[in-house]
Amino acid sequence: MKAIVIVKPKTTVLDPQGVAIRDAVRHHPGLEHAVAGVRAGKRLEIDLEASAAADPALEEKLHAVCRDLLSNPVIEDYELHLER
Amino acid sequence: MKAIVIVKPKTTVLDPQGVAIRDAVRHHPGLEHAVAGVRAGKRLEIDLEASAAADPALEEKLHAVCRDLLSNPVIEDYELHLER
Repeated sequence: MKAIVIVKPKTTVLDPQGVAIRDAVRHHPGLEHAVAGVRAGKRLEIDLEASAAADPALEEKLHAVCRDLLSNPVIEDYELHLER
Repeated sequence: MKAIVIVKPKTTVLDPQGVAIRDAVRHHPGLEHAVAGVRAGKRLEIDLEASAAADPALEEKLHAVCRDLLSNPVIEDYELHLER
């Protein structure tokens, strides 16, 4: 069982890494006018033990981890996807 | 139109960031024995101009960008997903 966590900058927050990547991609031949913008985020793939799947509070605990540890709620949003 | 690029460390490559996150998650109450491993990667959301969608070579060009610019093929794999 896997949990995929995606952490991305809030749309209202400036994302300098995304801006740098956008500008670099615009220097690529044939893509000069193709890119409107880039947002750079993180993607964490969490392998869960089989025994953890039986825990009814697992998803709630993972949300707590996402909030407290894996994202900064002031400037980032997260998505949690559980793959069984 | 959007392109989602996921860049992750190859499975054979040590991922110190993932190991650090795994150990931190294991300190979270109730998740001490839940996590087998974590792989930390990047996720880039590329907003494409509407005009770019008409380019039949767009996907090929984006693959070239992923290979040359957005990933390090020695230690990383990438996935490119186009959302129309």
